Amino acid sequence: MTGNSTLLIPPKQMQDRFEVILDNLGFTKEKSLAIAEIFTANSVDGIYTHGVNRFPAFVDYVKLGYVKPGAVPTLQHKFGAMEQWDGHQGPGALNAIHATETAMELARKNGIGCVALANTNHWIRGGTYGWHAAKAGFVFLGITNTISVMPAWGAIDSKLGNNPFVMALPYNDEAIVLDMAMSQYSFGAMELAVYKNEKLAAPGGYNENGEMTQDPAEVLATRRALPIGYWKGAGMSLLLDIFTTILSGGLAGHEITKAGIETNISQLFIAIDISKLSNHSLIAKTVNEIIEDYHRSIPENASKKITFPGERVLQNRKKNLANGIPVLKTVWDKILEL
Amino acid sequence: MTGNSTLLIPPKQMQDRFEVILDNLGFTKEKSLAIAEIFTANSVDGIYTHGVNRFPAFVDYVKLGYVKPGAVPTLQHKFGAMEQWDGHQGPGALNAIHATETAMELARKNGIGCVALANTNHWIRGGTYGWHAAKAGFVFLGITNTISVMPAWGAIDSKLGNNPFVMALPYNDEAIVLDMAMSQYSFGAMELAVYKNEKLAAPGGYNENGEMTQDPAEVLATRRALPIGYWKGAGMSLLLDIFTTILSGGLAGHEITKAGIETNISQLFIAIDISKLSNHSLIAKTVNEIIEDYHRSIPENASKKITFPGERVLQNRKKNLANGIPVLKTVWDKILEL
Repeated sequence: MTGNSTLLIPPKQMQDRFEVILDNLGFTKEKSLAIAEIFTANSVDGIYTHGVNRFPAFVDYVKLGYVKPGAVPTLQHKFGAMEQWDGHQGPGALNAIHATETAMELARKNGIGCVALANTNHWIRGGTYGWHAAKAGFVFLGITNTISVMPAWGAIDSKLGNNPFVMALPYNDEAIVLDMAMSQYSFGAMELAVYKNEKLAAPGGYNENGEMTQDPAEVLATRRALPIGYWKGAGMSLLLDIFTTILSGGLAGHEITKAGIETNISQLFIAIDISKLSNHSLIAKTVNEIIEDYHRSIPENASKKITFPGERVLQNRKKNLANGIPVLKTVWDKILEL
Repeated sequence: MTGNSTLLIPPKQMQDRFEVILDNLGFTKEKSLAIAEIFTANSVDGIYTHGVNRFPAFVDYVKLGYVKPGAVPTLQHKFGAMEQWDGHQGPGALNAIHATETAMELARKNGIGCVALANTNHWIRGGTYGWHAAKAGFVFLGITNTISVMPAWGAIDSKLGNNPFVMALPYNDEAIVLDMAMSQYSFGAMELAVYKNEKLAAPGGYNENGEMTQDPAEVLATRRALPIGYWKGAGMSLLLDIFTTILSGGLAGHEITKAGIETNISQLFIAIDISKLSNHSLIAKTVNEIIEDYHRSIPENASKKITFPGERVLQNRKKNLANGIPVLKTVWDKILEL
């Protein structure tokens, strides 16, 4: 990373800068604050690809008209604990927070609540909604479809999205949050590995001879990213796309791909209110016992702690709140120019 | 497979034989028929490991008292569209069908329905419930926990279950059903590969030097099966265990493992009634368009068709209904002696 030093930006300074930029793009003060908070929190959590590093792309999408600052989601249909909403191409993170809170409200009344959201934009980081619901006491499931970037199993052209899948639940005052996409590595992660001149820790896709490779540049050249679990993740990606599409009544991955721009995507949010269960007073203890047993795993490498999904996020959060958020100078310079 | 010929057993003959055995074990006529139908249907679908090949193990569990023929599930708690049931160690497949139908009934009234089931037994094949719900017009999600058989990521001892995850939806008069466990290969599949003297198509776990291997015997020796997507599937397995445990109020994987016998497991069933959605009349067309696009994938090997989850099941079903179910003579002999 010669010639590109890393700055440490205090979270407040980052959020203030994002707010000014968003104000200038035509978001209301309230929306600017909410979006700036999410991009900053993702950066504090160490998910830079879905935080500060992604902010310029979000601004581009607003300027190009794909993200509409004035749009708010509207209820299209309701039946019991299930609702269908239209996001009207509003900012994806705000539409997703709204859908999450609506699913939570439905769950308070019905035990479980389900919101499907059509015509929305990239939710930035799925974990945001997992943390949000779990910290409020809910079990949470979230799914989004995306533009197609991954081949079906045995195929060479991309017919599947790298559709993220989020599972979350409360853990003490924090949360356990699994936030995973269906490819082993995102293209963003592989681009970063090329930039750092690193190999992937495990095969990430195919080279031009159709062989699995740990060389990220070879995968970027073929665009044949490897699904998690080979045929299993490819199958799950297809099902995630179908679930979000038919339940929201929105666009499928192939339609988004045909349009050529990742907008008007479809999402699904399910919340379960665990305070309404017969065993609600025992759940915290039960989860702690499961995690204690899990942490008693014997590590292959004694220096490496066995962590649960979301555990390292907590460590990053503590460190970045104390020291500031590490940002490449080139990235921060770009943000100062926006 | 020298010395062990394959018989072709007509489905009716298999089902009748299962029924007689189950009658003798103390199941009511109605329960014997229902269980025999499920084991036979799984065999017809080509899922032999969860059909005819597993039947003797099920009989053993009944004889040992872990599966209780007389038990029926009882409702423990209800709040809106969410119910908690106790399976009282009854036959897992019947408990699971009951839970699936209860979730469907809740979905008919509330759009979405959720049933968590404690103290049940192995559901045999998760796909059974996916097909059942999807063919009746529901989107379906199903999860079970299991005894621990897979290490956490970076660990060498088994703290995670090979927890299956099922997603299903209607497709024309049939269904699309993803039924996947969290390890890349089950121990059953790896034992079969050893028996056939075959290598695995992809790495399935670790050898004793801690290296990934495609040699199934090496993985069976270390018991270090590879989770799908490495750290991703390991994390998902942990979350699936926690979801089933806290929502049902039943036992967690580590408790089942401590007891030493895979019984009193915990499961979760979610159904969504798509006939209650605003776009219900368009859903069949939408799914067909997605599958048409998916089938237009360019295969790496022109002779290999790109299939969706459940598509090969339909082919097996057609073939086995016409020709009979292929069963190893040793397996069928054992069943005739039960």
